[in-house]
Amino acid sequence: AHADPAETKGGIKIKTDDGRFEATVGGRIQFDYYSFSEDDGALIGSTAFGSGVAANDNRGGAAFRRAYLTLTGKAYGWDYKFENDFAGTPGAGGGTFREMWIGTKVGPGKLMIGQHKGFRGMEELASSNEITLMERPNTTATGIYNGRQFLRGLFYKGNTDSFGYGIHATTLTGEAGDPTEGTSFGARAYWFPMSDDGQTLHLGLAYSTDREDTNSKNAAAVFQYGGRRGISLGLAGAGTANGSTFGTQNTIHGEIAGSLGSFTAQAEYAVASMQDAYAGPSDADVTAYYVQASYFVTGEKKVYKKDRGAFGSPKPINSYGAVELVARYEASENSETTTGAANGCSLTGVAAGSYQTCEGSQITLGANWYVNPNVRFMLNYYLAEADVGAGKDQPEAISMRAQFGF
Amino acid sequence: AHADPAETKGGIKIKTDDGRFEATVGGRIQFDYYSFSEDDGALIGSTAFGSGVAANDNRGGAAFRRAYLTLTGKAYGWDYKFENDFAGTPGAGGGTFREMWIGTKVGPGKLMIGQHKGFRGMEELASSNEITLMERPNTTATGIYNGRQFLRGLFYKGNTDSFGYGIHATTLTGEAGDPTEGTSFGARAYWFPMSDDGQTLHLGLAYSTDREDTNSKNAAAVFQYGGRRGISLGLAGAGTANGSTFGTQNTIHGEIAGSLGSFTAQAEYAVASMQDAYAGPSDADVTAYYVQASYFVTGEKKVYKKDRGAFGSPKPINSYGAVELVARYEASENSETTTGAANGCSLTGVAAGSYQTCEGSQITLGANWYVNPNVRFMLNYYLAEADVGAGKDQPEAISMRAQFGF
Amino acid sequence: AHADPAETKGGIKIKTDDGRFEATVGGRIQFDYYSFSEDDGALIGSTAFGSGVAANDNRGGAAFRRAYLTLTGKAYGWDYKFENDFAGTPGAGGGTFREMWIGTKVGPGKLMIGQHKGFRGMEELASSNEITLMERPNTTATGIYNGRQFLRGLFYKGNTDSFGYGIHATTLTGEAGDPTEGTSFGARAYWFPMSDDGQTLHLGLAYSTDREDTNSKNAAAVFQYGGRRGISLGLAGAGTANGSTFGTQNTIHGEIAGSLGSFTAQAEYAVASMQDAYAGPSDADVTAYYVQASYFVTGEKKVYKKDRGAFGSPKPINSYGAVELVARYEASENSETTTGAANGCSLTGVAAGSYQTCEGSQITLGANWYVNPNVRFMLNYYLAEADVGAGKDQPEAISMRAQFGF
Repeated sequence: AHADPAETKGGIKIKTDDGRFEATVGGRIQFDYYSFSEDDGALIGSTAFGSGVAANDNRGGAAFRRAYLTLTGKAYGWDYKFENDFAGTPGAGGGTFREMWIGTKVGPGKLMIGQHKGFRGMEELASSNEITLMERPNTTATGIYNGRQFLRGLFYKGNTDSFGYGIHATTLTGEAGDPTEGTSFGARAYWFPMSDDGQTLHLGLAYSTDREDTNSKNAAAVFQYGGRRGISLGLAGAGTANGSTFGTQNTIHGEIAGSLGSFTAQAEYAVASMQDAYAGPSDADVTAYYVQASYFVTGEKKVYKKDRGAFGSPKPINSYGAVELVARYEASENSETTTGAANGCSLTGVAAGSYQTCEGSQITLGANWYVNPNVRFMLNYYLAEADVGAGKDQPEAISMRAQFGF
Repeated sequence: AHADPAETKGGIKIKTDDGRFEATVGGRIQFDYYSFSEDDGALIGSTAFGSGVAANDNRGGAAFRRAYLTLTGKAYGWDYKFENDFAGTPGAGGGTFREMWIGTKVGPGKLMIGQHKGFRGMEELASSNEITLMERPNTTATGIYNGRQFLRGLFYKGNTDSFGYGIHATTLTGEAGDPTEGTSFGARAYWFPMSDDGQTLHLGLAYSTDREDTNSKNAAAVFQYGGRRGISLGLAGAGTANGSTFGTQNTIHGEIAGSLGSFTAQAEYAVASMQDAYAGPSDADVTAYYVQASYFVTGEKKVYKKDRGAFGSPKPINSYGAVELVARYEASENSETTTGAANGCSLTGVAAGSYQTCEGSQITLGANWYVNPNVRFMLNYYLAEADVGAGKDQPEAISMRAQFGF
Repeated sequence: AHADPAETKGGIKIKTDDGRFEATVGGRIQFDYYSFSEDDGALIGSTAFGSGVAANDNRGGAAFRRAYLTLTGKAYGWDYKFENDFAGTPGAGGGTFREMWIGTKVGPGKLMIGQHKGFRGMEELASSNEITLMERPNTTATGIYNGRQFLRGLFYKGNTDSFGYGIHATTLTGEAGDPTEGTSFGARAYWFPMSDDGQTLHLGLAYSTDREDTNSKNAAAVFQYGGRRGISLGLAGAGTANGSTFGTQNTIHGEIAGSLGSFTAQAEYAVASMQDAYAGPSDADVTAYYVQASYFVTGEKKVYKKDRGAFGSPKPINSYGAVELVARYEASENSETTTGAANGCSLTGVAAGSYQTCEGSQITLGANWYVNPNVRFMLNYYLAEADVGAGKDQPEAISMRAQFGF
């Protein structure tokens, strides 16, 4: 009988000898433990806010962060990616999809139809198996592009040996999976004059416009502090997508990163302009940036992925694995909401519309143990601060992750 | 080590040389874009109805129509199909299952235990990867068998070289996945004196009885117009399955189809008699039919599938793929609801019980591009009409699909 | 090209020749039919209770009991299990997960991080493809460990040729998948001086402490009678985990089992002490036990699985398969709830707090047909009794299962 070569490194890969046909079954398990220390003194006047609000809902314990099943394949010059997060929150229309697309080469690049990440920022586009800290920073869909990591529509990307780009033209499909006329358009370009392991220089620039419509996702920016089970400080919104007023978020985004030997540094800066059509139209300007540095104690060097314009993980040199230390500082600010606007800062314990500017910042320290190419353990410590008017919230948190990618 | 042959055409197949054992991993991604033009003049008296109702919920945008993962296998003379639609609406008890059964040969045919489609109509039983227009017509679970595409119980089917049959005896398991004593019994027979590619003649007849009970699916007939994101005109129901009155739907169903070279024509006609036990017992008669014709501009011929009694897609002859044009006319009518009944037509903007007869019709024009055996693009244009009393609703819609089957 | 051996027995297995890497795709389909006979005379005074309550919700019909997709794999000395029940009730954070862990050998045993069953009882730890009756008895998460079958945290287990053990230290993660500070600690040890097929002796002992906290699962004990679609008699709870008072359940658990030729007998006994901190703190003592005997008419012998400390299914000797007969008696009792407590028996039709002691018992008779190593049919008959005060509820039920494991 006819037989194509099969292969396993923990997952499954079948590939014809001529490379024209291929199918893989893979996945990832990420299991986390959280410990959160509230700031008992977080008060605005005499009112508790942020982590200072005594919650009946504790924030510690164990949880699955991700459980992906990932199928990919190639046939007759086309390919697909079928990825579902079984640890996600179920919803109609594919609420737990991650990448879910059909693609082919068109011109110099690749066209993808379906669901993919928008092209905005290098840490946003790094694999969740390879991000250096447990959560992505504030310049991603965890922050300034709040809740809009995966978009549905058309995506085009490509790269040469020193330059790469990505463009998306998509809808802003809402949580319920319903179609919507909300839209997102974005483009990213990056230049990497050096891309060898241990000698990398990367510069990137992205711009996107998210326009809300009925049932679309909201265009809004938040600052998430204290990790995955921490607190979300709403910096500004662009309207109320599920109601009848819609807004627009325009975001410009810069990236710079480099590696030298086992040392890697990376920073991103994004500025979003939010236009809200709500009664007494208001605008808000939000900035978010971070700087991050990491070092492999055991001598490995970060791998630069040209097709993503982002870093990936090296294979451990030693049989006992690789150890990496990392530190990140990030800060977000809504510095200018126009007066008279309902828009502004939102946070548990803060009365709606009371504060039109606010800011948050956080230091995260981490240690990663890459046991082998499939298994990684992570330990993160967070020291965060949110400032709303005269109020200051300063919680701490610790989180751990066990991860198997296959 | 022992090794069985593996194979890929985008999915995975492992099969022992003796054919006794087999396992496959496959799936399908169908990603749609919708554009819907409401009929602003759709009025009954001065009240807007149907697509004329100004909805806060727009009907355009992108959505995943299907995202199936399909596992099949054979062992010791038995086989299974395990199919889940990840783009479906999650619910307890397997709410997103498609085919999910255990089977084996019994007598001349095959017995399947679990979930499968009822045997009622040829387009109902065509694969969603191979239907000629993006949505199935009104003689299917999209119409006269509303919401009862997949049933749970026993299924038996078989065929010779010119004749085929299918019988089901099942429950009418409700949306929540709970067991129920509602039942569906049905049988279908089809005769195909000619079944060569490009020279096919098919005649079919089906009959089924759906009896509601507590928590079962409702026996009801609708006319869905304007495509997937269009409007559902309720023609008649057989009772209130989730309440305390239950009814019965008896449906008789005829099929005729044939192909000559690249040209294919197909028609189905179904008549349902609905008996409702509701206070002031009422009956209603619903008819649904369609005629459809398609032509491969590029010279391919439709493939007839004897085991399904339905057409499938040919492989493209040319490297640039195959192009098919298609047109369908469909019409549904509730012509006779007995007086005094609460039962009757239901539609947004139409007061309950006001109209006891109604009708809908639709022309759909389509073009399909079969890029290769895995990839297809579809474009559909809908011109629809719903008539309720003196009211007329005439929306238009356009939809597109990108599809990868593996 | 490089190729690793592939293999199928209905599922997929790829394994490198050196055994260091491996991946499998498997699953199980279990499809049930239920018929339930209510006890019309189940009254407390003049009030109907238990199965005597005329329910609008019938209990008969067909349903999927399980539909698992199971991926396992090995790489570099680590392994994983990724198992999801598609027939489960969807919920955030992995509500339909079954086993979902990352593991490796540590010392003499194996460490697993993620979700696994707690180590408490031999029938609890038997595979759902191999349990002798369709539902597990009252000494499992179906009964005395109500709703706490799968836990999230750390698991360690190992065995020699005559002795085995398991330890878990986990959270009591609630239904919504949120992390929680509720905890479960447990240990189990078992001794099997004889473990040959048809000549087995097994003795086991387990102890566990479940402590509730905000959002954790409730520590509570029930008696489920009349099968899967039967009635749940609440025996006692340890508090209200989703409210503000929390409690603790300490359970001690004994096991004895043996086989002689085709005959197998098995019994377990568990005593739980529930401490509730609720206003007017109360304690309750719950006991649960069962005895079960089975016999292979066709001559097969039960297989003892040393790593689980539980029985599994033999392969049929004859081409027509194997037939097994089985009977089980089980009884549960809340014999002692301290006075003044709100805690006590709960059952439909029984006013809250009215009865502080209650008991239930059940006889289950079963016949299993193992058609081949993948396919099994099961038939169960239940004769149950629940006693609450002067009330007695005595329903009967019949259930059937078709099952395919791959």
